[in-house]
Amino acid sequence: MLHILFLFSLLFFSSHASVQDFCVANLKGPDTPAGFTCKSPAKVTVNDFVFSGLGIAGNTTNIIKAAVTPAFVGQFPGLNGLGISAARLDLAPAGVVPMHTHPGASELLFVLHGKILAGFISSANDVYVKKLKKGDIMVFPQGLLHFQVNAGGSTAIAVVSFSSANPGLQIVDFALFANNLPSPLVEKTTFLDDAEVKKLKAVLGGTG
Amino acid sequence: MLHILFLFSLLFFSSHASVQDFCVANLKGPDTPAGFTCKSPAKVTVNDFVFSGLGIAGNTTNIIKAAVTPAFVGQFPGLNGLGISAARLDLAPAGVVPMHTHPGASELLFVLHGKILAGFISSANDVYVKKLKKGDIMVFPQGLLHFQVNAGGSTAIAVVSFSSANPGLQIVDFALFANNLPSPLVEKTTFLDDAEVKKLKAVLGGTG
Amino acid sequence: MLHILFLFSLLFFSSHASVQDFCVANLKGPDTPAGFTCKSPAKVTVNDFVFSGLGIAGNTTNIIKAAVTPAFVGQFPGLNGLGISAARLDLAPAGVVPMHTHPGASELLFVLHGKILAGFISSANDVYVKKLKKGDIMVFPQGLLHFQVNAGGSTAIAVVSFSSANPGLQIVDFALFANNLPSPLVEKTTFLDDAEVKKLKAVLGGTG
Amino acid sequence: MLHILFLFSLLFFSSHASVQDFCVANLKGPDTPAGFTCKSPAKVTVNDFVFSGLGIAGNTTNIIKAAVTPAFVGQFPGLNGLGISAARLDLAPAGVVPMHTHPGASELLFVLHGKILAGFISSANDVYVKKLKKGDIMVFPQGLLHFQVNAGGSTAIAVVSFSSANPGLQIVDFALFANNLPSPLVEKTTFLDDAEVKKLKAVLGGTG
Amino acid sequence: MLHILFLFSLLFFSSHASVQDFCVANLKGPDTPAGFTCKSPAKVTVNDFVFSGLGIAGNTTNIIKAAVTPAFVGQFPGLNGLGISAARLDLAPAGVVPMHTHPGASELLFVLHGKILAGFISSANDVYVKKLKKGDIMVFPQGLLHFQVNAGGSTAIAVVSFSSANPGLQIVDFALFANNLPSPLVEKTTFLDDAEVKKLKAVLGGTG
Amino acid sequence: MLHILFLFSLLFFSSHASVQDFCVANLKGPDTPAGFTCKSPAKVTVNDFVFSGLGIAGNTTNIIKAAVTPAFVGQFPGLNGLGISAARLDLAPAGVVPMHTHPGASELLFVLHGKILAGFISSANDVYVKKLKKGDIMVFPQGLLHFQVNAGGSTAIAVVSFSSANPGLQIVDFALFANNLPSPLVEKTTFLDDAEVKKLKAVLGGTG
Repeated sequence: MLHILFLFSLLFFSSHASVQDFCVANLKGPDTPAGFTCKSPAKVTVNDFVFSGLGIAGNTTNIIKAAVTPAFVGQFPGLNGLGISAARLDLAPAGVVPMHTHPGASELLFVLHGKILAGFISSANDVYVKKLKKGDIMVFPQGLLHFQVNAGGSTAIAVVSFSSANPGLQIVDFALFANNLPSPLVEKTTFLDDAEVKKLKAVLGGTG
Repeated sequence: MLHILFLFSLLFFSSHASVQDFCVANLKGPDTPAGFTCKSPAKVTVNDFVFSGLGIAGNTTNIIKAAVTPAFVGQFPGLNGLGISAARLDLAPAGVVPMHTHPGASELLFVLHGKILAGFISSANDVYVKKLKKGDIMVFPQGLLHFQVNAGGSTAIAVVSFSSANPGLQIVDFALFANNLPSPLVEKTTFLDDAEVKKLKAVLGGTG
Repeated sequence: MLHILFLFSLLFFSSHASVQDFCVANLKGPDTPAGFTCKSPAKVTVNDFVFSGLGIAGNTTNIIKAAVTPAFVGQFPGLNGLGISAARLDLAPAGVVPMHTHPGASELLFVLHGKILAGFISSANDVYVKKLKKGDIMVFPQGLLHFQVNAGGSTAIAVVSFSSANPGLQIVDFALFANNLPSPLVEKTTFLDDAEVKKLKAVLGGTG
Repeated sequence: MLHILFLFSLLFFSSHASVQDFCVANLKGPDTPAGFTCKSPAKVTVNDFVFSGLGIAGNTTNIIKAAVTPAFVGQFPGLNGLGISAARLDLAPAGVVPMHTHPGASELLFVLHGKILAGFISSANDVYVKKLKKGDIMVFPQGLLHFQVNAGGSTAIAVVSFSSANPGLQIVDFALFANNLPSPLVEKTTFLDDAEVKKLKAVLGGTG
Repeated sequence: MLHILFLFSLLFFSSHASVQDFCVANLKGPDTPAGFTCKSPAKVTVNDFVFSGLGIAGNTTNIIKAAVTPAFVGQFPGLNGLGISAARLDLAPAGVVPMHTHPGASELLFVLHGKILAGFISSANDVYVKKLKKGDIMVFPQGLLHFQVNAGGSTAIAVVSFSSANPGLQIVDFALFANNLPSPLVEKTTFLDDAEVKKLKAVLGGTG
Repeated sequence: MLHILFLFSLLFFSSHASVQDFCVANLKGPDTPAGFTCKSPAKVTVNDFVFSGLGIAGNTTNIIKAAVTPAFVGQFPGLNGLGISAARLDLAPAGVVPMHTHPGASELLFVLHGKILAGFISSANDVYVKKLKKGDIMVFPQGLLHFQVNAGGSTAIAVVSFSSANPGLQIVDFALFANNLPSPLVEKTTFLDDAEVKKLKAVLGGTG
C-alpha cells in the first residue's frame, strides 16, 4: 500500500516548485510593484517566518523621546506578498511620534504598557483623538495624518501592525525640513514663516 | 431567420439585469468599502457618463490664488467602481496648491496652460521637483506629500486624473490648523512654535 | 481674508458626504463581498476606531485551556474595508489553539508573555515550527493549517493581527466533529477510525 | 467537560453573523462595484452553491448554430464575490460563437466533445489560433477578442470558466448591428460599407 | 494610402514590447507574489495557451482510488497572472478526494460523468453537502475545508476550475501525517489518539 | 541635539532600500503580471516622473485623420505599478479613432479643443453616445467597445487617462484585418461578406 501511495503522492509533489503558498523576499533580487522576487522554496526555513527584533526596546534618548522599530519586508523578508507587517513603538515620558502618514497601509495600534494619546485627521479635516490605555487598540485608516503621544508618567510601549508588507512612513517634519526642499518653496506651500522653516531645517538637518 | 435569431438573443438578454459593465453610483443609497450601490441600469443614460464641470474656470480670488474643481464620484456618479477620477486646477499668478496628499490614489497632472512648479517628497525624504510647461505630464505616487505652484507670470491651468473614483484630499495646513485639534497637540507633533500655530489657526478658522 | 478663505474651503467641503477615507460598518445594514455598508460619516466618532476588548484576559478554564478573543469587523466596526484586524490569545499552562486556518487572511503573531510553540504546514506538506519567546513575531501565510501551544510553565499571551477585517477561523476539529457531518463521511474523507470520530463527536457536541 | 466546552464554543459562535466566508447574492437587493449584497447567512442552504442548468444542452437551431448557457452570478447567486463563474457552449456542426470579448475576465475553455477551432487576437494584433480536441483546455486572456468554431462533423460541447462572477459578454456583431447605433457612425468607426452595415443591421434587428 | 497607414500603424506597434495583454510564465525565472516573470512576447506561441494534460484519465489505482491532475501555472504557464486554473478529478468506485483546502482560491466543480457527493464546511462549522449528478456545478468558497466522494457505482469524472493561477492544495491528512510533524504535537493540536496518529503516519509515510 | 537626532534618523533611513513608495520600471528587466521590476531607487530622478511627449501634436495625415500618442508604462516608466496612464488624441476634421477596447482599464477623456462625438456600447448592447465640447469629460467603462469622432469643423484634441499603467489598445479593424487571421475565419465569426473582408485586409495590410 505504501508503494501505491507513493505514486499518488508523486502526483502532488511533482508540482512542488511552483506550488508556493508564500514568497519569502530575496532582498538582493529585483523588487516589483507587488513585492520582491521569491527566495528559492528549497532554501526557506522557519527562521524566514520569525523575527525577534521587536522584543528589544528602542533607544528613546533622542529629540522625540521615542523610537519606532520596524518589522517591514526589508527587515523581515517572510512578510513579502502577505499584506501585513508590524513595528514597535517606545515612547519615553513626554515622547512623541510626530504627525505622519503611511502612504500604502492602514495601521492598527495595540497598547502594551502605559498610556498613549493617539489621533488622526480625516480628509474632511475632522479630528479623531483618544487617550488609550493598556490593552486598547485603535485603527488609523490608510494614508491619513496621525500621531501618538505618551499620555502618562512612565514609558509607553505599543505594537502596531499594517495592512501591507511595506507600508512606508512619511513624517511631515522630515518631509518638509530634513532635506534640500528650498525654504521659499516650503513656506509657499505651507504658509509657515521663514524663521520657523529655517529653525526646523537647522534642527532636522535640512538645507536650502 | 429573424425569429430564430430572436430566440438566440433572448438567451443573452435574459440576464440583462445582472450583467453590468458599470455601476453608476446611487449617491442617496449606502456607501460600501468598494463604492456606492448602483443606480438601476434601466435608468442609466449617457449623461451619467459625462460631466461638464471641469470646463469652467475655478474662482482663484482667494488666499491661495488657486482653485481645485473635483470630478470625483461625489460629483460624477458614473465613475463609481471604475478606479479613475479627475479634477481641474486653476492657478492665478503666484497661486499655490498647498502641500497635500491623496490617501487613496496616485495622481497624474497634465499642464494645459502656463508653467507649474510641482514636486513630491518620498518616504525616504527625497525631493522630486520639476518646472512643468504646457503639455508636460507628471505623476505623484499614492499617498505622498506633493504640491503645485504657478511658476509663470500668467494663470496656469492643469487637468489631473487619479487612480481611484474617490481619491480623497488632505491638505496639511487644513488638517493641522482648520479644525479643533488643540494647539499644544499640534505643536508637540509638528515641533512648530505656539505663535506660528496660533497664527495659522486664526487664518484658517481653527480653534483650540 | 477669512471671508475669501471661507469660499475656498467651501469648495473642498461641499463634497464632504462622499469624500470618505473610511467606512465604519453599519452591522445592521447589508453585507457585501467587500464588507458592510458604511455608517453615516456624520455619526462616526473616535470611539468607532477604538476597541478595548483585547485588554481583558480570555477565560481559559475550558477543554483547550485557551481563549481567542477576536477584534474582527463584527466586534470592531471601524475596521470595515481597511484590510486589517486583530485578536488576543490566552494560553494557560498546557493550553493549545488547535490546528486551524484563516480562509481569507495571513496572520502575524506577537508574543506578549510566556513561551509559545507555533507552526504551520505548507501546501507541499513541509513543516515550519518554532518555539517563540516574548517579543518574537511569526507570520502564518494565508489559508495554511497552523497551531499555537503553550511551551512554558506559565500563562502565555499573544496579540495577533490579520491581513483582513474579517479573516474567518476554521478549526479542523470543530469543522469535522462539532456539527452534523455524518461520521461515515468524516471517516471516508479523513481515514480516521470510526471509534475516534465518534469519540470526538461526543466531546465536541457533533451528531450523525 | 461538555459544559466547559460550550463556553469555549460560544466565544467563536458569538460572532456568527459577521463571520462570513461567502456572500450569496441577494439578487433583489442593490448591486455594488464588488457584487451584490449578501443573502442572510441563516437562510443560505447548500442549494445556493449548486447549479444544474449547465447539464442541459442549449438550443442550437439558430443563426449561429450555437448556444451559450451562462452560470454567472445572475443565474447562480452562490458565485457572488468568489471571482469565478462558468458557462456551457453547444456548437452544432458549422456552429460558431462569434467574435466577442469578456470585459472583466479571463476565460478557460475545456472541450467535452468534438473538435473546436478557437483563437484570440492580442493588442499587438497577433493571432493565436488552435484546433482543440476533447480534453484540451485553452485560456483567453482578459478583454481580448476571441471566437470558437465547430471544427468537426458532429456537435461540439465545451464548458468554460471565468475569473469573475460576472464576466460580461460583448459580441462584436451585436454591439455594432443589434441596436440603434446609427449606420453612418458604424461605418465611420469600422470602415465597413454602408450596404454591409445595413444588411447586418437587418439580420440582427438593429435600427438607425 | 498604404504608406500613410504604415506610419499610423507604427505608432501603435512601437510600444509592442511593453503592451502585454498576457504574461506567459518563464518557469525558470524568478517567482513574485503576483506570479512568475514573463516569457518574451516574441517567443510566445498559441501552444503557450493550450494544455492537453487534462484529457488523460488519472491513475486511480491507489489508496484513495482517485487522481487529481492539475493544470496550474506550474504545468500550464499561459495561466500566469490571469487568475484562473483547472484540474481534472478521476474517482474510481469508492474513490475519495480527502478533506482539503485551497489556500488561495475558490473552486468550481463540473461533473462530467457519474455521481459525486461533495461538500464543504464553513467557518461557522455549518455543513453544506450535496449529491451531484452529471452536468451539475458546485462552488467551494476560498480556503474552506471540502471533499468529494464517488457516490455511484462507476467511475466519476469532474473538471474543476479555480479563481487563481496557483490555488495551492492542502490535504488535511497529508499535512498532519505525511511529514515530520512530531506525533505529540499532532495529538495535542487535533485531540486525536496516539495510536490513530501513529497508524496514519505509518500509512502516509510520516515520521516523528 | 543634532547628534541625537542623527541616531534617530538612522533608524528610519536604515531601511531605505526597501521602503519604496514607487517602482520606476526597468524596461530592460523582466516584466511580471503586476508590472516591470523596479529601477534602483538610487538612480531614480524627478525626470522618471515627468513625460513631455503629450505636448506635441500627433501626425494626423493618415487614413483615419487621427493620432493617438500613448504615455503608457512603455513610454513613461515612472507609471509602473501606479495604476494610471495617459494618452493624447489628435483628430483632424473628419478624423476618427475607430471602434476599440482597452482590455485592462477604464478610460476618462477630457476635451481640450474642438468637438468630439464619443460613445460606447455595453454588454447589454445599449448605446451611450454624446457630443462633447471643450472642457467636457466622459468615462468609458473597462473593456467595452468605444470610439471618438471629430464632430466639428476644426481639429479636436483630447487628453485621456486610464485606470492602469498599461491599459492595452485593441482596435477592432486592426484585430480583424491587419494580420494573418484567415479571411474565411473572419467571415464566419463576424458574418461579414468575403468581398468586404478582403477589401479591408488589403487596406490594412492583412493577409490570408
